[in-house]
Amino acid sequence: MATDASVAPVLNTKPGIQSLSPFGAARSTVEGAPLTADELRKTNAYMRASLYLCLGMLYLKQNPLLKEPLKLDDLKARLLGHWGSDSGQIFTYIHFNRLIKQYDLNAIFISGPGHGAPAVLSQSYLEGVYSEVYPEMSQDEEGMRRFFKQFSFPGGIGSHATPETPGSLHEGGELGYSISHAFGSVFDHPDLISVTMVGDGESETGPLATSWHSTKFLNPITDGAVLPILHLNGYKINNPTVLSRISHTELEALFIGYGWTPYFVEGSDLDSMHQAMAATLERCVKEIKSYQKQARDSGKAFRPRWPMIVLRSPKGWTAPRDVDGHHLEGYWRAHQIPLPDVAKNKAHLKLLEDWMRSYKPEEVFDSEGKLIPELAELAPTGNARMSANPISNGGIIRKALHLPDFRKYALAVNPGITNKGSMSNMAEWLRDVVAKNLTNFRLFGPDETESNKLGGVYAAGKKVWMADYLPEDEDAGNLAYEGRVMEMLSEHTVEGWLEGYILSGRHGLLNSYEPFIHIIDSMVNQHCKWIEKCLEVEWRAKVSSLNILLTATVWRQDHNGFTHQDPGFLDVVANKSPEVVRIYLPPDGNCLLSVMSHCLESKNYVNVIVADKQDHLQYLDMNAAVAHCSKGLGIWEWASTFPDEDPDVVMASCGDVPTMEALAATALLRQHLPDLKIRFVNVVDLFKLISNDDHPHGLTDKAFDAIFTNDRPVIFNFHSYPWLIHRMVYKRTGSHNIHVRGYREKGNIDTPLELAIRNQADRFSLAMEALDRLPNLKNRGSMVREKLLEEQIMARNDAFEHGIDAAKYREWVWPYGPKEEGVIGAVQSKLGLGGDDQPAASVVGTSE
Amino acid sequence: MATDASVAPVLNTKPGIQSLSPFGAARSTVEGAPLTADELRKTNAYMRASLYLCLGMLYLKQNPLLKEPLKLDDLKARLLGHWGSDSGQIFTYIHFNRLIKQYDLNAIFISGPGHGAPAVLSQSYLEGVYSEVYPEMSQDEEGMRRFFKQFSFPGGIGSHATPETPGSLHEGGELGYSISHAFGSVFDHPDLISVTMVGDGESETGPLATSWHSTKFLNPITDGAVLPILHLNGYKINNPTVLSRISHTELEALFIGYGWTPYFVEGSDLDSMHQAMAATLERCVKEIKSYQKQARDSGKAFRPRWPMIVLRSPKGWTAPRDVDGHHLEGYWRAHQIPLPDVAKNKAHLKLLEDWMRSYKPEEVFDSEGKLIPELAELAPTGNARMSANPISNGGIIRKALHLPDFRKYALAVNPGITNKGSMSNMAEWLRDVVAKNLTNFRLFGPDETESNKLGGVYAAGKKVWMADYLPEDEDAGNLAYEGRVMEMLSEHTVEGWLEGYILSGRHGLLNSYEPFIHIIDSMVNQHCKWIEKCLEVEWRAKVSSLNILLTATVWRQDHNGFTHQDPGFLDVVANKSPEVVRIYLPPDGNCLLSVMSHCLESKNYVNVIVADKQDHLQYLDMNAAVAHCSKGLGIWEWASTFPDEDPDVVMASCGDVPTMEALAATALLRQHLPDLKIRFVNVVDLFKLISNDDHPHGLTDKAFDAIFTNDRPVIFNFHSYPWLIHRMVYKRTGSHNIHVRGYREKGNIDTPLELAIRNQADRFSLAMEALDRLPNLKNRGSMVREKLLEEQIMARNDAFEHGIDAAKYREWVWPYGPKEEGVIGAVQSKLGLGGDDQPAASVVGTSE
Repeated sequence: MATDASVAPVLNTKPGIQSLSPFGAARSTVEGAPLTADELRKTNAYMRASLYLCLGMLYLKQNPLLKEPLKLDDLKARLLGHWGSDSGQIFTYIHFNRLIKQYDLNAIFISGPGHGAPAVLSQSYLEGVYSEVYPEMSQDEEGMRRFFKQFSFPGGIGSHATPETPGSLHEGGELGYSISHAFGSVFDHPDLISVTMVGDGESETGPLATSWHSTKFLNPITDGAVLPILHLNGYKINNPTVLSRISHTELEALFIGYGWTPYFVEGSDLDSMHQAMAATLERCVKEIKSYQKQARDSGKAFRPRWPMIVLRSPKGWTAPRDVDGHHLEGYWRAHQIPLPDVAKNKAHLKLLEDWMRSYKPEEVFDSEGKLIPELAELAPTGNARMSANPISNGGIIRKALHLPDFRKYALAVNPGITNKGSMSNMAEWLRDVVAKNLTNFRLFGPDETESNKLGGVYAAGKKVWMADYLPEDEDAGNLAYEGRVMEMLSEHTVEGWLEGYILSGRHGLLNSYEPFIHIIDSMVNQHCKWIEKCLEVEWRAKVSSLNILLTATVWRQDHNGFTHQDPGFLDVVANKSPEVVRIYLPPDGNCLLSVMSHCLESKNYVNVIVADKQDHLQYLDMNAAVAHCSKGLGIWEWASTFPDEDPDVVMASCGDVPTMEALAATALLRQHLPDLKIRFVNVVDLFKLISNDDHPHGLTDKAFDAIFTNDRPVIFNFHSYPWLIHRMVYKRTGSHNIHVRGYREKGNIDTPLELAIRNQADRFSLAMEALDRLPNLKNRGSMVREKLLEEQIMARNDAFEHGIDAAKYREWVWPYGPKEEGVIGAVQSKLGLGGDDQPAASVVGTSE
Repeated sequence: MATDASVAPVLNTKPGIQSLSPFGAARSTVEGAPLTADELRKTNAYMRASLYLCLGMLYLKQNPLLKEPLKLDDLKARLLGHWGSDSGQIFTYIHFNRLIKQYDLNAIFISGPGHGAPAVLSQSYLEGVYSEVYPEMSQDEEGMRRFFKQFSFPGGIGSHATPETPGSLHEGGELGYSISHAFGSVFDHPDLISVTMVGDGESETGPLATSWHSTKFLNPITDGAVLPILHLNGYKINNPTVLSRISHTELEALFIGYGWTPYFVEGSDLDSMHQAMAATLERCVKEIKSYQKQARDSGKAFRPRWPMIVLRSPKGWTAPRDVDGHHLEGYWRAHQIPLPDVAKNKAHLKLLEDWMRSYKPEEVFDSEGKLIPELAELAPTGNARMSANPISNGGIIRKALHLPDFRKYALAVNPGITNKGSMSNMAEWLRDVVAKNLTNFRLFGPDETESNKLGGVYAAGKKVWMADYLPEDEDAGNLAYEGRVMEMLSEHTVEGWLEGYILSGRHGLLNSYEPFIHIIDSMVNQHCKWIEKCLEVEWRAKVSSLNILLTATVWRQDHNGFTHQDPGFLDVVANKSPEVVRIYLPPDGNCLLSVMSHCLESKNYVNVIVADKQDHLQYLDMNAAVAHCSKGLGIWEWASTFPDEDPDVVMASCGDVPTMEALAATALLRQHLPDLKIRFVNVVDLFKLISNDDHPHGLTDKAFDAIFTNDRPVIFNFHSYPWLIHRMVYKRTGSHNIHVRGYREKGNIDTPLELAIRNQADRFSLAMEALDRLPNLKNRGSMVREKLLEEQIMARNDAFEHGIDAAKYREWVWPYGPKEEGVIGAVQSKLGLGGDDQPAASVVGTSE
């Protein structure tokens, strides 16, 4: 097992300047010159047309064809946009067009490098799609003028591949997700090739770095192919990129290590680069086809070392190499506007004009501004054009799921007595969702599906695994080449796959531990922005919602410790636009079923569902659950006292564990104060609490007051940080009366039992909180308070006997004041507390 | 440039079962058997002692030495903890101990795999550190009993390498950061070796996958070395790991590609594995020393392909291979408690007892429970013990920064007229901070330092770059082998480096664009938990604060578009424990200096500072700024009217751009209503708003009311989402009077100018909001309202002429009601609005 000689450890003492330069005649792994002289000439001309359009977008508001000499007035006053990666992307796009036509391919183009929109916009314009979608951006001089002017201009479009960009399903504002999006798009699209430009800056991000491993989850029979083109243009905003500054040996080894076959195309000389890229892309397409054919003909899936391309070309390729003694082409100065001072520097204005004219617009566009026919013919037609592929506007091809009727999966409920797992029950329904939608739905998660009690779905669709197998895999038997569950220990990758999957017209669900969902805060954030923007783009059809099921929730994370306790993802989501976010906290199993079914049917939302995975109390039969979830919140009359009367106090809850404790608190109060009028309210749909002015689900003030009253104390037991409720209700008349208890980042509850004890302490403190808020009770209140306190001291005694620390206990139990401390001290000394025995196993949840 | 033959593309059609099995005699890259028979015997015994302790932690509450037959009562009632990675980690730790002694090394051990605490706890106990730190956990039978019982037990310790763990600076609750933490720990610690176990599950995360590239930023002269041991134990919770199921060729290529020299140690046979690991680790240490010597002797830094080890051993190594026909050792069933049902299954109880006895506790511990002397001698002594290395308790070795007096860098301010860049000015001070602390402070960022106007620091410390150079790098000249600025396009990596750097006793600052800081929400979250917990651990000394400077803020992200707009990181941070988080929004340049200096001096916080990087108005001279920042908020009398009287209305602001607009609104009101009593309040320290019950910085209600009043309308212009203010002030008496304006996720402001226009519209709407809240003004108010409206319509006209969409404009300008719409319509038609000309460049900010 000696190290391979050719990749043996060598000291990299001498910088490999020669091999790292992006300049010169093409150097490529694949040899050959497949283009005829005429094809070469046309390809070059098409590229010039596209590059000309890019510069036009960056600079011009008029004189689009440079029919007049370029003058200051022709320029936009504020120059914005990025030139750096445009040429390399255009180069790739054009060469892939040739293969689409030659091999009748079904392809989309994913633009990974940041701010590379001019490349794909110019291509879309040249192939006519842009004018079809936006008729005012016609293929003539005036249309071209508008097309230029709108770019990075008020009322126009941005500098990323935003939703307004035909053919785009990947905006690229935040970097790192091009490869995972691409894989998501090709799963269950066996004929699709997603041509994916990957920026070398983007490649440094964590999410991108691990997403190369996605090949271990792609089946060549049922899925299409991703063809990545790593674009080594060498620079980020202000630094070289790491991958452009390592040796050829390392770079090649890296991609072989990731499981790909890297083909290199390097250089700047246009003619030889065109030949090299034509030959290399063709080789890649043939390899892809050949692997697919082998697998499909034999019916035996395998993991090929799929082809990918490393394209090393100068940053800002085809720009002037040097300006005023500083490098432009091939340097980071070409990142954004290449000549930023043209408005002030006449020589630079002239330089820009010469540069633009060097693309010979008069040769490639006719006098009306239309691309000349011999070039227009180079692009594919109809939906074969990458910017017209309906897959990139997935809502168009989306088919509704065949959803089994969730009512048939109802838990039989003896309210408040049945103790069952909501999640494992829901898994049975989910299994059948999988079974009925075997090419249209996938379940995603970071190695937690089984732990999250959703393993039941494997009966309908196993876990996809295309890496190697060992004989012992038979033992559990849940891995398969073909499956419906996607698990990799990268929240970024599985979320990226899911996004790509739904944006290309399918359906899915991500399950994750609640505490670690913050890892993808930013991805969810960006997806919210994407779908919100899509609402404004007429031709974009709505896609399936991004469904995120959170479990292993904060209230059950005693055994995993403090690092595993954080319910704050809800705050991040609640900041997003009300048009696109929904948050549900079903209190029990039948509500979970109802909510999940609703979410899987919905479109264009980010749905977040929070539910416990352990056994817990069940309350509502299916009819009641459906009615409750349809309203989103409601009074639980069966849990209230004197439901026909105005309440003295409202006990409210949101979240399953908090609901259990709030009900227990209500029972305590009812026991000790049988004539107290308690209204019990449960909230499933969190946004019901917000004003209807601020969210479409929000209640009117009148409806809100009808449930919560506007003058009675509301004791609100909440799953997450309490402030989230306060910020939602601050506009309500009775907001001052709403007293919220929730998770607080205190006390370092990181050993078993502590959190369970804390949960149990809740019922006492909730009840006491209610008493505190009811001054009219006076002496009666005090008496009950003392009784409750005695009961709690007994419970606390149990806790101490189980090893709970007294200081911590006091910290958790909010309403303890000095008054009670005295009583506690007395009872404590009477009973002689402080034992140090074992916790009873039954007191706590099971572990994961 | 053909592909190397030995790593040529090959179809990976046959699973390489043979080479992927972790079982059998050792297979290793490095040959040799350096251990004598006696050393081998002792090493084995030491490992048995450690493994025994691990099982004891998982299972026992008494009978720690198994002096009695194992009975049910000896077991903890709830079995928690993880066995899977313990043996491999112990194995590595022990073998490194040998080298510490032999070569007098300075080393720490970083435990990357999740829940691997028993491994490092048992090692700490064996080398005596645990008993020194926690005397009750003595090295005797009763101490061992306590040591076992406390693990994953109420009042005890968790199952990660939590802050209570001696020698730990990496908890590992959330996976993915072991390598970046390790690199942070060795920067500027030239003699340190951070021995870093990396889990193969963890390796699938994005942050870990890119952090291998950290070698491109490590200088062998000034920095120490990271020695990673990738632990291929094959399984996560419920799945195989990707890296354990790819071919040897791919795995080797991957790490060569990442820039390392991988040495393989694979197998399960203990004797041969001990020899292989001893030989391999020694080879690695020698290589590290040799590279360092070469660089240090010659004074020429270079990037070696540093050694790393791939250790393939069975998951749960040394457990029974099969139990009841299912694999345990070498399978995912060994992940957590290996025999979970011992309480119910007598045969398994017996199996456990036999297994534990197979480690021969009576041989390795004396009858008192103390490790026998010949084994105790194997560990290093004093601070050479990895669990005693003071670097892992960095606060102990931390030296305060030499901070230049920030007052000397004051901006000369003509209040409200000076228009300068706060950030570029602060960069001068920061440059001198760097210059005065050349081995103790680093600036971190993801390729944005220059863009963030902090490039001035390069004069004192360049950007570290250990990858290859090209001649053109001379052009800018900011890259160097030795430098103080760390830039890689991975927020995860640079944040991880910074954490490692400060946890090992140094200082630093991370600068980042505000919108993308959400990428590391979860890392910051976890760091908050770490430092909060440290407050409870007596022997932990406080470390420098984690300072995060956010710029490219939401109010200046017009040109970069909607994807670049998100101020919600503050919400995430505000959820964390008040003991450890601080948020500052300095309104101008001198306040920024004051705040930054304060933050760099502070300990044990996460400080978040939000400041614009563009030129903007300056208000406070240095004395006023220091006084203002010391209080954290205050009344700006110079901006108020009738400052000695009770106000009619309070205009408040937090954040620099919002302050500018609130001041402009105040000026408008003063102009039109000269007798209106306006109090202007600015907030720098956000937590001043919270009750002093909830945060140490919080104002008392009395102090709060003295500033904001408890009955006057407060118009509060805020940098971030408005709800954050509402949740902070909800307990205040006057909270209903506080009307907050902030960023809202609406309107898709993604073209230039739009956001600048929106900012300007703010001043009018803020002023009108104030009028709306002052019903006593009656007719006067209406008149002023109309005047303001006219002015605003003129401004709006300008905006329309610059291409702003009318519908969007209406959406941004909050207080527009139907009443104004009528007036607007009239004026609009009179003026004939809707032009489509160019924006004036001066209206908008510059681009980045």
